[in-house]
Amino acid sequence: MRFASLLMSAAAGSLMIGAAAAHAAEGMWTLDNLPVDALGKTYGFAPDAAWIAKVMHASVRLENGCSGSFVSPAGLVMTNHHCVEDCVGQLSTPRHDLMRGGFLAPTAAAERRCPGLALDRLDGIVDVTGRVAAAGRGLAGPARLDARRAEIARITAACAGAGKAVRCDVVDLYQGAVHHLYRYRRFDDVRLVFAPEADAAQFGGDPDNFNFPRYDIDLGIVRAYEDGRPVRGNEFFRFSRAGAEAGELTITSGHPGSTQRQLTVAQLERVRDVDDPWRLTRLAEQRGLITRFSAESAENARIARGTLDDIENAYKAYYGELESLRDPAVLARKRADESELRALAAQRAELRADDAAWDEIAAAQQTFRDIAMRYRFTEGGQGLWTDYFDIARALVRAADERAKADAERLPEFTDAALASTEQKTMSPAIVPAALERVKLSWSLTKLREWLGADDPLVERVLGRESPEALARRWISATRLGDVAYRARLWRGGKAAIEASDDPFVRVARLLEPESRRLRARLDAEVTAIEHENAEKIARVRFARTGTGAYPDATFTLRLSFGTVQGWNDHGRPIGPFTTVAGWFGRSTGQAPFRLPPSWLAAKRALAPGQRVNFTSSNDIVGGNSGSPVLDRRAEIVGLVFDGNLESLGGTFWWDEAHNRTVAVDGALILQALDKVYHATALLDEIEPPR
Amino acid sequence: MRFASLLMSAAAGSLMIGAAAAHAAEGMWTLDNLPVDALGKTYGFAPDAAWIAKVMHASVRLENGCSGSFVSPAGLVMTNHHCVEDCVGQLSTPRHDLMRGGFLAPTAAAERRCPGLALDRLDGIVDVTGRVAAAGRGLAGPARLDARRAEIARITAACAGAGKAVRCDVVDLYQGAVHHLYRYRRFDDVRLVFAPEADAAQFGGDPDNFNFPRYDIDLGIVRAYEDGRPVRGNEFFRFSRAGAEAGELTITSGHPGSTQRQLTVAQLERVRDVDDPWRLTRLAEQRGLITRFSAESAENARIARGTLDDIENAYKAYYGELESLRDPAVLARKRADESELRALAAQRAELRADDAAWDEIAAAQQTFRDIAMRYRFTEGGQGLWTDYFDIARALVRAADERAKADAERLPEFTDAALASTEQKTMSPAIVPAALERVKLSWSLTKLREWLGADDPLVERVLGRESPEALARRWISATRLGDVAYRARLWRGGKAAIEASDDPFVRVARLLEPESRRLRARLDAEVTAIEHENAEKIARVRFARTGTGAYPDATFTLRLSFGTVQGWNDHGRPIGPFTTVAGWFGRSTGQAPFRLPPSWLAAKRALAPGQRVNFTSSNDIVGGNSGSPVLDRRAEIVGLVFDGNLESLGGTFWWDEAHNRTVAVDGALILQALDKVYHATALLDEIEPPR
Repeated sequence: MRFASLLMSAAAGSLMIGAAAAHAAEGMWTLDNLPVDALGKTYGFAPDAAWIAKVMHASVRLENGCSGSFVSPAGLVMTNHHCVEDCVGQLSTPRHDLMRGGFLAPTAAAERRCPGLALDRLDGIVDVTGRVAAAGRGLAGPARLDARRAEIARITAACAGAGKAVRCDVVDLYQGAVHHLYRYRRFDDVRLVFAPEADAAQFGGDPDNFNFPRYDIDLGIVRAYEDGRPVRGNEFFRFSRAGAEAGELTITSGHPGSTQRQLTVAQLERVRDVDDPWRLTRLAEQRGLITRFSAESAENARIARGTLDDIENAYKAYYGELESLRDPAVLARKRADESELRALAAQRAELRADDAAWDEIAAAQQTFRDIAMRYRFTEGGQGLWTDYFDIARALVRAADERAKADAERLPEFTDAALASTEQKTMSPAIVPAALERVKLSWSLTKLREWLGADDPLVERVLGRESPEALARRWISATRLGDVAYRARLWRGGKAAIEASDDPFVRVARLLEPESRRLRARLDAEVTAIEHENAEKIARVRFARTGTGAYPDATFTLRLSFGTVQGWNDHGRPIGPFTTVAGWFGRSTGQAPFRLPPSWLAAKRALAPGQRVNFTSSNDIVGGNSGSPVLDRRAEIVGLVFDGNLESLGGTFWWDEAHNRTVAVDGALILQALDKVYHATALLDEIEPPR
Repeated sequence: MRFASLLMSAAAGSLMIGAAAAHAAEGMWTLDNLPVDALGKTYGFAPDAAWIAKVMHASVRLENGCSGSFVSPAGLVMTNHHCVEDCVGQLSTPRHDLMRGGFLAPTAAAERRCPGLALDRLDGIVDVTGRVAAAGRGLAGPARLDARRAEIARITAACAGAGKAVRCDVVDLYQGAVHHLYRYRRFDDVRLVFAPEADAAQFGGDPDNFNFPRYDIDLGIVRAYEDGRPVRGNEFFRFSRAGAEAGELTITSGHPGSTQRQLTVAQLERVRDVDDPWRLTRLAEQRGLITRFSAESAENARIARGTLDDIENAYKAYYGELESLRDPAVLARKRADESELRALAAQRAELRADDAAWDEIAAAQQTFRDIAMRYRFTEGGQGLWTDYFDIARALVRAADERAKADAERLPEFTDAALASTEQKTMSPAIVPAALERVKLSWSLTKLREWLGADDPLVERVLGRESPEALARRWISATRLGDVAYRARLWRGGKAAIEASDDPFVRVARLLEPESRRLRARLDAEVTAIEHENAEKIARVRFARTGTGAYPDATFTLRLSFGTVQGWNDHGRPIGPFTTVAGWFGRSTGQAPFRLPPSWLAAKRALAPGQRVNFTSSNDIVGGNSGSPVLDRRAEIVGLVFDGNLESLGGTFWWDEAHNRTVAVDGALILQALDKVYHATALLDEIEPPR
């Protein structure tokens, strides 16, 4: 296979689908299919092949769900503080809390490996649509899905080869109309270089999250290593000297996680009525629980911080998503679009058969509603909220799956994904017992609450014990805190798993039959039907719109194009910039509005007018965290770390008037490293003499 | 005015609207308008005037939102344990926890007054429709609402007179088409006589709540006093010797709180999209918070128990309500009904003007959506979750309202309601500081979260302090724990309020202008419009259906008629009875499935086949808790304490196939008092020789 060839031809104008943005700023574009006409017309911008190749090779994906970019020729990677928060927490101890105090490695030797964190850098894209389509031809339902999965496993296995340094994913684009093979260089040795204090990185905490005006230096710097040495000679981005002014073109290069902008009304109603309310009430209860646990002692607050931050962030994100679905205007627009498409399908003979697609998807939603609750608590794993269960399930499942042919395995255990799964399962991060007891005990009460005290599965898990007693007993008995024990189970395969008396291995084995049964049922009766029919709908949409679309986000590299601008919030204009003076004014000295001592000490050294954060009209979603904001020369003018509240409907539609990206100003990063953190060596590496 | 006259004519057949139930068991019937034809046809039952009068005078309402009944000629009242749970908790101390240990007053002198609890016994009903309608004639919007309210205040003031022993309420029935004056004898001295251990009363706890099979003796017995002596010579119900068999007629006499079975689709969508999701996520977060607080110590668990029980119960109730609104079939039926009514309105000249009613209500829902968040945190009082704030607001508001003419006051401060408001405000129940700190601190973070850190109101409440510090300071500084101080502020009026430096009085004063402004806006732009247009819709509905309807529940006395029966749960038949043998089998010894020592000791004395709980097809909702289940002779066969999960959609519609009442078996109550609690004197009083 040849990589990068498609990319080259795309950049030269032979676009796969041929893209022309409906809105000025809408779209998360794959690198092989940039909206070159619109970019030329709107911004007078014409990226050439070299520009695109540079952006591709200097951008990275964090496997934990974030984005980043190389910012030095020696493997230095810029991302968000909140993207390395797990690592910062895991490297902390009660006496050395790096969330509170921050971290700056004084020498290369002091850079500290992040447990479980890996980076992927895209090396090339190949169109494999024909192979995948051929594999499923003549089949339907789960058989078609299985045949395609098997072909995808063959493609990725051939691409990745035997080593762990290459990762290959087949990406489903345009509702299955297109399949592309993405080949990455994978870095599994990633070390923490710099993190500011959480009080500065996440100033304003949850109250300011997704809000603007905003004041955060949400920055984390790590370094990619290979063979125990820093990566050398990689492509990287330089910082712009000029920064970005209002109205200027901004480009984000990152990995938006997931959008569903083509969902049918029935699917949107399922998200509104089933998925989001469940997530929100569950997160809300977890939030109350962990909030109180954290208030009990400084040590509890330290060990629970990452968990609570994740909960609060997800809560707000889903709330915003649901708000957009509850807006009658949004659903009315989706309904009108659907009616128009169905009318078109009914008119044209060649599309008439596709008109049933919407009804079949709607019927599958009802099936989902029927099995959702059991699915959540078995395959969804929500009955046992503890890292130990996740580890145990991966071990139990790996033993079964690795014994199969690659093409027959569950996707996360195919050779292509196995390195990533193994690294997560073997992470040496400490699992804090006090927090796990609270999480597990609570989640066992939820298992009983939602499946019912008389449910056979609940009876087998709980026996006649109380959730509290069981959680205490299991957490103190488990040996899964010991990575060596995990490694023995991983290596030992099925025999070792069956011989283990670890309580979490036992309960993972116990749940396995029903988990797999429900996963298979979901695949067959919901996912397969959604896939097949989404393809049909995509065909109808293509008949209407023709070329000019971007695919839904898939946690793969995308560029978005916008400009620096604020927005109008119900008649109140919000400007795009905040300044250092505003930041100091907002600091009350009380968490979460408390600047750390390093910043207070540096107050005189910082220009009051120095910009802190800015907003732009780039089309991003979760997963873009840590993306660089680039100018047309591919120089860094900012660092994406958030969207505004109005951007949270971006999962389902693009609201040009209000959807805004929030970024750290690039110059602030350099100023802070210099004046606040006195990180001279780091600055010299990032800003080498030109 | 003459009371009971309407009642007499109703029983004699001259029914006001003339009732004929659409379904066999549907309906919460006012005593002046029983569905006599249907009762005769379906059950061969013809209640006469004496029967009705007896039921009316032996039934009571608990002002805390429950129902009950006199069960002895000396003022003994039977209700649920969960209806007197607040009282039981308030009478407990760390060393004498009556929730855990139960309570039985060995002598009359040992009966203990329940702080803040009052009973209302209905003495008569008078139709005042004409007076209320005349007051609003020719007016519209808030002017009409105000004029009607003023007339209602005049009617109730004249009815109640000066004393505190009579309570009069004008009840809005049939969407404002009918107004009835209900006159009650009010008992504000209510004393606890008996409560079983919570482990027996609420066996199964939250997991079993709203479920069946069920095993609870959810019983509380109090006594009404007047002038410091037990009430004498009241009407009361006897216990049936025979009990109720499957298929037998069962009658509940109680006070269903609120149904909205005539809401328009736009209103139901508002409940589904705005009200219930807000309630559920808020309750879920409170639940997590208080769950963890309770786990910290036995004393925390004790002081927070009532709060947590209330949260869990409300959570499950709203969840069930929302589930029914998310069922596409339910909303489709409502939509079809609405289309049919609108088609009728469009057809008939005299109704044509009413066709706009649905659109006007829909527009008002949008207004509600716009102001909902600020309303919740100001007039809704949800930014300050502490009893101290509720007390402070009542004091601040009483000072303003009591200075006005009766007809101009807010409804809860009219002379008719003042005794009840004052009793609640002056309750000597201890407000536990540790719990209040947690509640207040959390709720202040929510105030900031939802209105925004930069909101002027938030800034004025929080200043530059953290919610935690503020909560600590306010709770330790407040003097509102001292009832004498409260009484001085109540008596001292406006001058005393303005002179007070109590932090909660201060913050209540601070919120007052915006609270009142939002309340007025809600009244004018939502409530008034809903009322006016609901009347128009009721007119159209009357044109279609004619006579034969029951009014929505209004926390006034209603009878419902059903039979003892189980139901079919997705093909699984659920029988209507549980037994003592089943109960002992379900006891694991672990909370909440832990029978207390008294029951374990009595095991041999109890017949294994003795029934514990049963289900019936009576149409009830929240507020019916504590209602007696009567047979046709008006003898007690059971005690309502719950509905099944499927009954929770009962707020919006009646599901004959699945909606079931859950009751304690009457004989179990007598058996328990005898064999488990050895409450000989109490039994003798309840079961005097016939």
